[in-house]
Amino acid sequence: MLKDVEISGAIIEAYMKDLLDNLTLDVAIIGAGPSGMVAAYYLAKGGAKVAIFEKKLSVGGGIWGGAMGFNRIVVEERARKILDEFGINYGEFRPGLYVADAIEVATTIASRTVKAGVKIFNMFEVEDLVVKNDRVAGVVINWTPVKMTGLHVDPLTVEARFVIDSTGHGAQVTQHLLKRGLIEKLPGEGPMWAEIGERLTVEHTGEVFPGLYVTGMAANAVAGAPRMGPIFGGMFLSGRKAAIEIFEKLKV
Amino acid sequence: MLKDVEISGAIIEAYMKDLLDNLTLDVAIIGAGPSGMVAAYYLAKGGAKVAIFEKKLSVGGGIWGGAMGFNRIVVEERARKILDEFGINYGEFRPGLYVADAIEVATTIASRTVKAGVKIFNMFEVEDLVVKNDRVAGVVINWTPVKMTGLHVDPLTVEARFVIDSTGHGAQVTQHLLKRGLIEKLPGEGPMWAEIGERLTVEHTGEVFPGLYVTGMAANAVAGAPRMGPIFGGMFLSGRKAAIEIFEKLKV
Amino acid sequence: MLKDVEISGAIIEAYMKDLLDNLTLDVAIIGAGPSGMVAAYYLAKGGAKVAIFEKKLSVGGGIWGGAMGFNRIVVEERARKILDEFGINYGEFRPGLYVADAIEVATTIASRTVKAGVKIFNMFEVEDLVVKNDRVAGVVINWTPVKMTGLHVDPLTVEARFVIDSTGHGAQVTQHLLKRGLIEKLPGEGPMWAEIGERLTVEHTGEVFPGLYVTGMAANAVAGAPRMGPIFGGMFLSGRKAAIEIFEKLKV
Amino acid sequence: MLKDVEISGAIIEAYMKDLLDNLTLDVAIIGAGPSGMVAAYYLAKGGAKVAIFEKKLSVGGGIWGGAMGFNRIVVEERARKILDEFGINYGEFRPGLYVADAIEVATTIASRTVKAGVKIFNMFEVEDLVVKNDRVAGVVINWTPVKMTGLHVDPLTVEARFVIDSTGHGAQVTQHLLKRGLIEKLPGEGPMWAEIGERLTVEHTGEVFPGLYVTGMAANAVAGAPRMGPIFGGMFLSGRKAAIEIFEKLKV
Amino acid sequence: MLKDVEISGAIIEAYMKDLLDNLTLDVAIIGAGPSGMVAAYYLAKGGAKVAIFEKKLSVGGGIWGGAMGFNRIVVEERARKILDEFGINYGEFRPGLYVADAIEVATTIASRTVKAGVKIFNMFEVEDLVVKNDRVAGVVINWTPVKMTGLHVDPLTVEARFVIDSTGHGAQVTQHLLKRGLIEKLPGEGPMWAEIGERLTVEHTGEVFPGLYVTGMAANAVAGAPRMGPIFGGMFLSGRKAAIEIFEKLKV
Amino acid sequence: MLKDVEISGAIIEAYMKDLLDNLTLDVAIIGAGPSGMVAAYYLAKGGAKVAIFEKKLSVGGGIWGGAMGFNRIVVEERARKILDEFGINYGEFRPGLYVADAIEVATTIASRTVKAGVKIFNMFEVEDLVVKNDRVAGVVINWTPVKMTGLHVDPLTVEARFVIDSTGHGAQVTQHLLKRGLIEKLPGEGPMWAEIGERLTVEHTGEVFPGLYVTGMAANAVAGAPRMGPIFGGMFLSGRKAAIEIFEKLKV
Amino acid sequence: MLKDVEISGAIIEAYMKDLLDNLTLDVAIIGAGPSGMVAAYYLAKGGAKVAIFEKKLSVGGGIWGGAMGFNRIVVEERARKILDEFGINYGEFRPGLYVADAIEVATTIASRTVKAGVKIFNMFEVEDLVVKNDRVAGVVINWTPVKMTGLHVDPLTVEARFVIDSTGHGAQVTQHLLKRGLIEKLPGEGPMWAEIGERLTVEHTGEVFPGLYVTGMAANAVAGAPRMGPIFGGMFLSGRKAAIEIFEKLKV
Amino acid sequence: MLKDVEISGAIIEAYMKDLLDNLTLDVAIIGAGPSGMVAAYYLAKGGAKVAIFEKKLSVGGGIWGGAMGFNRIVVEERARKILDEFGINYGEFRPGLYVADAIEVATTIASRTVKAGVKIFNMFEVEDLVVKNDRVAGVVINWTPVKMTGLHVDPLTVEARFVIDSTGHGAQVTQHLLKRGLIEKLPGEGPMWAEIGERLTVEHTGEVFPGLYVTGMAANAVAGAPRMGPIFGGMFLSGRKAAIEIFEKLKV
Repeated sequence: MLKDVEISGAIIEAYMKDLLDNLTLDVAIIGAGPSGMVAAYYLAKGGAKVAIFEKKLSVGGGIWGGAMGFNRIVVEERARKILDEFGINYGEFRPGLYVADAIEVATTIASRTVKAGVKIFNMFEVEDLVVKNDRVAGVVINWTPVKMTGLHVDPLTVEARFVIDSTGHGAQVTQHLLKRGLIEKLPGEGPMWAEIGERLTVEHTGEVFPGLYVTGMAANAVAGAPRMGPIFGGMFLSGRKAAIEIFEKLKV
Repeated sequence: MLKDVEISGAIIEAYMKDLLDNLTLDVAIIGAGPSGMVAAYYLAKGGAKVAIFEKKLSVGGGIWGGAMGFNRIVVEERARKILDEFGINYGEFRPGLYVADAIEVATTIASRTVKAGVKIFNMFEVEDLVVKNDRVAGVVINWTPVKMTGLHVDPLTVEARFVIDSTGHGAQVTQHLLKRGLIEKLPGEGPMWAEIGERLTVEHTGEVFPGLYVTGMAANAVAGAPRMGPIFGGMFLSGRKAAIEIFEKLKV
Repeated sequence: MLKDVEISGAIIEAYMKDLLDNLTLDVAIIGAGPSGMVAAYYLAKGGAKVAIFEKKLSVGGGIWGGAMGFNRIVVEERARKILDEFGINYGEFRPGLYVADAIEVATTIASRTVKAGVKIFNMFEVEDLVVKNDRVAGVVINWTPVKMTGLHVDPLTVEARFVIDSTGHGAQVTQHLLKRGLIEKLPGEGPMWAEIGERLTVEHTGEVFPGLYVTGMAANAVAGAPRMGPIFGGMFLSGRKAAIEIFEKLKV
Repeated sequence: MLKDVEISGAIIEAYMKDLLDNLTLDVAIIGAGPSGMVAAYYLAKGGAKVAIFEKKLSVGGGIWGGAMGFNRIVVEERARKILDEFGINYGEFRPGLYVADAIEVATTIASRTVKAGVKIFNMFEVEDLVVKNDRVAGVVINWTPVKMTGLHVDPLTVEARFVIDSTGHGAQVTQHLLKRGLIEKLPGEGPMWAEIGERLTVEHTGEVFPGLYVTGMAANAVAGAPRMGPIFGGMFLSGRKAAIEIFEKLKV
Repeated sequence: MLKDVEISGAIIEAYMKDLLDNLTLDVAIIGAGPSGMVAAYYLAKGGAKVAIFEKKLSVGGGIWGGAMGFNRIVVEERARKILDEFGINYGEFRPGLYVADAIEVATTIASRTVKAGVKIFNMFEVEDLVVKNDRVAGVVINWTPVKMTGLHVDPLTVEARFVIDSTGHGAQVTQHLLKRGLIEKLPGEGPMWAEIGERLTVEHTGEVFPGLYVTGMAANAVAGAPRMGPIFGGMFLSGRKAAIEIFEKLKV
Repeated sequence: MLKDVEISGAIIEAYMKDLLDNLTLDVAIIGAGPSGMVAAYYLAKGGAKVAIFEKKLSVGGGIWGGAMGFNRIVVEERARKILDEFGINYGEFRPGLYVADAIEVATTIASRTVKAGVKIFNMFEVEDLVVKNDRVAGVVINWTPVKMTGLHVDPLTVEARFVIDSTGHGAQVTQHLLKRGLIEKLPGEGPMWAEIGERLTVEHTGEVFPGLYVTGMAANAVAGAPRMGPIFGGMFLSGRKAAIEIFEKLKV
Repeated sequence: MLKDVEISGAIIEAYMKDLLDNLTLDVAIIGAGPSGMVAAYYLAKGGAKVAIFEKKLSVGGGIWGGAMGFNRIVVEERARKILDEFGINYGEFRPGLYVADAIEVATTIASRTVKAGVKIFNMFEVEDLVVKNDRVAGVVINWTPVKMTGLHVDPLTVEARFVIDSTGHGAQVTQHLLKRGLIEKLPGEGPMWAEIGERLTVEHTGEVFPGLYVTGMAANAVAGAPRMGPIFGGMFLSGRKAAIEIFEKLKV
Repeated sequence: MLKDVEISGAIIEAYMKDLLDNLTLDVAIIGAGPSGMVAAYYLAKGGAKVAIFEKKLSVGGGIWGGAMGFNRIVVEERARKILDEFGINYGEFRPGLYVADAIEVATTIASRTVKAGVKIFNMFEVEDLVVKNDRVAGVVINWTPVKMTGLHVDPLTVEARFVIDSTGHGAQVTQHLLKRGLIEKLPGEGPMWAEIGERLTVEHTGEVFPGLYVTGMAANAVAGAPRMGPIFGGMFLSGRKAAIEIFEKLKV
């Protein structure tokens, strides 16, 4: 016979093991949007110990709504291979420009990322960074509803060799460095220019402070490069680029 | 060269075709939670024309948070086959009781449901029903943010041979019948008793008004049966049961 | 050398052990106000396994503010022994009427209650009851900030042989029975009449539904008896009375 | 027989055709207030392809309320011809100063503007600009309720040879240039001085950045010139001036 | 030279004359939506003294947003003549079903209504009715922002031989009768069924209490008849019907 | 027989006459607190044409609450004569320090000020200044509830030879000069030091920009001088000083 | 030399003496609007011990705003003597109908009432009644801001031989009796009819429950009689009537 | 027999005596968190006249929630003696690192602090400082709910030879000096580094302006030193250090 507290007990045990297991990570990724999940996927595939901390209950970031709620997204030729890697369907709008269902994209990438071994902690807000000897050494986390309600509750700390800021155009993780004067400026994304933005988001992906990587729109925000709207190829390629670079460094 | 308006154009064209194609449906499912998505999956597998309208941007309903944000969920023996059908990983807590990752569950079911041919319209709230000759004949939909802001904007109408209320314990679709006096009462879910609740949610799945089915916690809410917390077997089996029953009727 | 994650690890381990240890209780007390804490204190002193679930971060209920923020409270003769039991200072206003510092009262009772072996879980809201075979068999709990923000997150369940509703004049636990039609009415507290209210709050303390006790103002609310303002003798004696009665039944 | 989905289908088809047709424009006008509508009217009369994007559901900007809700407005001699052009009634307060009904003014100008061939998209907020090679090349739009609710949904892009900022004293379109460092300052409107403000709003109407015009109070805000209250002659003449200047450039 | 206070003076004088002139009316119409404005137009054309009191700053009611913000509306054959009467453009979707631009419809009707001699007082909320000897004899009005902010400010009274409730499905004027027990029930609109709703809105247009008429969706709300979405023929015909009926009675 | 519209008509006529009469003033005083009302009283006594514009419904500013709601206030020796002038009762706390009832103070000063011929317009917010040829020449006013609700409604203008900012420590009128760059700084009140603050509030009373006077805490805020809590002698003397100085200039 | 804490000390001492002195009253009046203040004035003139508890910081109730903020009020012939008694100026609109300045009315009545010996406690909300042996025996009070913020703070109790509910159309004191089932219904004010409402407000003034009087609009609300807008003669006469009746009973 | 007003009277008398007694203090401590209470405890033990002013109803600051609501806290070896001094239980996580129950910690320290003779005034916000001759000479206090609701009510003043800012990382008292330009910068806490933060919080404890001490996280915030999460040894030692230093100065 099923007892109600068994459900409670089973969940608490499994989750707390997850939480304790993930207090020290190779890579802590902040934000379960397209670039963060793709980075996590490739890092986990390669064997790194990686977790994602996501502010919302759900994952997927800005993918869900397509454009203005018209829930389709666009991917250009050079990123088509990522759609194929994840097994996502798409149609051709014109040669080199593909349209996919936003919900299929968001959920398929997330499903595959978790299956690749990535633990995603949702409803967790990064309220600060751990910085030791001028290097980002972890993140300071708290329940999102605790932050939303302004309750006075201390956070937990997670240590990581690398942190990825994949929080989108707000670059919310990197903002903490700015607020503390550890970086000098954070210009924010530039006005819309999809073609240039798509290219630069990959180019600007990299380590902006010892221990801290930026991907996706956070990369463009830190560099002051253009935004690009509901086209996601650059996001995917940025995530993959960060994974490859960090993976090399983790070997050291 | 990529033009910015091409992205806009590609998305508008694809989406509007989706929207026009789905104005008349075999089955309109309201709520992309576990029972609604499972029902949609099996209906689409069988060849029915089915769409889901979901109030939020993201799908998955109450799965994401596990229990109190400890993002694991429990499934009992009889529903294990559904996990297997969707290819979801799980661990054994004790014989007959399994624990799975909430995020893997939510995203994998959704991903597979879309791939099965179901169109999910997110950020859509059902603000009313179409009732003709004492039969539910469709749903009246509007953008969720329009409803949230209280702007005075008329809705669109979608016609369907069957409507499924899979909106959870609020039974928000069935509430419209109560408000209009077309049903006499809607007792709401009963207090927690997982074992009984799990069994009854499947038992109470069915047609509560000509043209309107209830699944999952909406079924228990309409029947006044117990709630059961973060255990999802009954949800899955309820969705499958509704799919099978409606499928038979659609053949007529 | 102190590592940041050690702090996280130490807290998670200790707390999760607490949480798992308290999933099945002799007595689950809802509300860490004066009557709930006093009941918990005497029950724990007697050896019962008891925990308090408190909605706020802090404990003490309505004691802190005295009257209109003038943070003093009044206790009459018959309850003076409870002040003595807890070692709380007081002054004599007139023979038989004593004045104490509200902050000393709130913190001293709480401190002594925890030391007596009671685990208090704060920031936990009881969102429902477990009812099995027409008996209250436990409580359904969730983080308060999750409830405040309306996030869609399932709760945990705690089983208990007895539940005490010590939530004050709202009688928030008993309200769940009313909402589900398991009791017929809940009149709420009557207008102010301190002398009568003080006496009746003790008299009305008792089991109002199999497995559910009410204490303090919740007892008067369920009985429709008068309120009494910042005089706390009746609260203390009500908590002690419930403890004694339940203790007898636990022996069975 | 009328079917409910016919209404949905007819509206979706007509509107989506409008939307696709207006993705590339000669002139995108932001704000359906007096200067924006008058500019649109004269541009459309001349044959330009022009659309207005308006944040609210209704058009008319600051005209509706007259002064403090006393719904009359004032127009001086030199702009009387615009009232005549639109067929708006007015009375003489003193020689050279005319009073008109605010509601007649707002609705008559709007009605005539639409009839002149201008498509107005209401409930659309301009959340950013398209800037290419240091020239404003379009606008980035989204549903107003999506912006109001803070939902994470990507926008659409509209390309235009010229953009007009007719958003009033907030100069909300030009603010995006300031935020991105593309212009150096935006002083905002000066204190009230109706006579001078009326004259300067026309004088300051012009191109403030390649591809971006300002009209009405936005022109005075960009120049730091005085505001003028419920007198609308300058607004009308500013709109007409912008139309004439842009029209000349479009010929090139 | 233009003086700033001249603008103030001109507006106050003109408006206050309007306000004093309209304290006693033949017909006070509440709500400047489609049925209210059409009723006002025909009444004024016939020579009645009529004013509209509108809660918002802008007029037009539910016309502006079309369906879900797709700003087109539908009109069926029998009401096409009203479009022609007001000089509104439309296209044919299929024989007997016409599509028009929502903004053209809203502003053109309003413009023509004011030109017909109707004074519209916007930003005025009807907070109560005048009822004398069991007959509605006027309305009690106040500034909308005063009501929104809950400031304690008394209203003004306007007397009228007839009052029209054209406030839409809320039937906000008729609600005052229900609240005071002067009518027994107000069922509210029924679920969507456009064809039937269109027919009944005209049928139910009429006098529901001595001195009080209902039009448009308020008529269906009072009768419990179906709603119909963004199709406006019934609205127009309802307004015209009320005008004709009241006009006959005014002659007496 | 009394007719309801007579009440409306009587009030509109009387008020509108007031409003038109006060569009051009000798002195426009902003804020009906202690210093503003005392200034108005003495100016009116001397024969100047003066009106007060008050943001709230009620007058009295910070007098009502005494200290922390303990509704008594303190006045020192040198200002006792003002209490005597207005006929306000007081008790002696110690030689030279008097205590009065806050409500008697607020209402008696206001009553006497109105009787002296001052028109007070309440529920009016000054949203801007009129500045002509580098001199403050009037104020720009709007309904407070319109400002609170953010409705887009233009203001009215009142012209005055002098404007007094008696809005308290916010110095809200003078802030408009700062925002427009017409003054360079506005340091705000300094920390509490009652004795010094009382003295300086009178000393700093004066003309801070051509046409603009500051009184009371606004004077200290503009000068960066200390605040002083619920002691009102300085306020009264500041108001009287401004009245005397302005009166001299008005004679010119 | 003036010390800052002297101000604090002087105010605390004076106020606390007031508060202790007024814990037992002949008459506790709730609401410092026109009828409550007039009742207090006449009772105090006669020698009764009376205090007013007012929810807001300021007194005056609904007088301040006149009609829609046009701050004039109307008084009819039979109440002119009250204006004369308080020394309030007025003008004649037509024979028997007088117009006065709302601010002069509010502040002059209040000033005279305090001078007559009435202590007004402002910022005090009556959160409940004292009811003993089926008679209202006092009021339960708390700081208004404590109630507004929902802080959990107990109230104070004031005992009185009679309580007057002069809280206006909400009849907020009498509502407590309804909520507790001590009276059976409270119909609320009826629709507007000034002539009848004026007459009935005096007629319905009286004792509605042992120990509880109602005056002004509260009297009409309890009786279901018409409202009357910004005409205040009935208010004044109601207050005086209650004073006279209670005075007789106090003599017993 | 107990009378209701006796309760009121007893509380008012006792509290007002407290309030008057504490208007002049040796040390005014702002914030009843761990460092503030420990400082108060040692100062009172030594015989100083000290009171704490706490913004919330409850005391304990950031202790209650442990980490993320897991209500345990950590203390390291060097501060274990403080736990022993207060009689708080703890367990050993690893040599030198101890875990205690957050609720026991918060309430036991508070209970012992009050018993040591410290008066805690809760629900009091410090809205400003008294600064005389460039020395902090006291604090300006008001009810927290008055501040929360923005009501316009003047504060009280308390004079003290020393003020301690123990308001945590916001350093809210010291902010007033910054706002007034009396100190030049207040960098705020640095990113998380528990080991260093723990050490520096004690080191930075001290007098930052004549008369003003900082303790706990306020000390680190003023110095720009790292934060440290739910480890409280540094807090306790900081409080004790401040007590010792101030005690020496008080002797002078």
